[in-house]
Amino acid sequence: MKSKIKLVEDMQFVGVADSGHAVAMDAPPSVGGRNTGSKPSELLLMAFGGCTGMDVISILRKKKQDVTNFEINVKGETPESHPRLFTNIHVEYIVAGKNISEDAVKRAIELSLDKYCMVGNTLNKASKITSSYKIIQED
Amino acid sequence: MKSKIKLVEDMQFVGVADSGHAVAMDAPPSVGGRNTGSKPSELLLMAFGGCTGMDVISILRKKKQDVTNFEINVKGETPESHPRLFTNIHVEYIVAGKNISEDAVKRAIELSLDKYCMVGNTLNKASKITSSYKIIQED
Repeated sequence: MKSKIKLVEDMQFVGVADSGHAVAMDAPPSVGGRNTGSKPSELLLMAFGGCTGMDVISILRKKKQDVTNFEINVKGETPESHPRLFTNIHVEYIVAGKNISEDAVKRAIELSLDKYCMVGNTLNKASKITSSYKIIQED
Repeated sequence: MKSKIKLVEDMQFVGVADSGHAVAMDAPPSVGGRNTGSKPSELLLMAFGGCTGMDVISILRKKKQDVTNFEINVKGETPESHPRLFTNIHVEYIVAGKNISEDAVKRAIELSLDKYCMVGNTLNKASKITSSYKIIQED
């Protein structure tokens, strides 16, 4: 898997990977950027949320769960001193739908975080990953 | 640092983090997606390239290097069997400009990979990160 990241101007970079989609990245003005795109560290958290989200929704669909809304909140903590890294990452899954099985949600999250999610498998060597979920049962 | 990732439809998710920028993610058709956005694992590699790229260009500018073009290629390797993760990541820096100091480039890369780059510091607990550089001296 390859990606190319090119400096555009100031601190703005654009990345393009194998799938052909471009992603703009930038830094805040405090470090010379113009905040025109996501910070790389934010992208890392979003990549994790998207990765585990795709696993969980796939598994829930296989288990015939009628999911009407699905959101993931990812929160990363870093120390202020160098070398900085994400020491703790918490991921919260919010699943809304009709007759959603709590067991199915729990199992889907476990399978993603323990096995399938490549981004999570990479991050959990550096970060303590914790998770929680909320189920919103609709009428 | 927080981000919210929301399912849009099929396997398409949109992430938004603190800086307010949205990023679309999707999966290929082979796993139920429509390839409308980057794969999460690609985003991880691009986040790494952007992170270390911002460090390196900042340091080169501080060292008064006249950089006219700057690109980063990131290549990640993963085993085929579960649990998958990036076991090896290679990052190549291509710096073009006038009278570019090789020492400055080497030192900037070292500082980024050994100290400053938060994404790299997180990934290098899971992945063997290697680097190389090319300098294109312009007339």
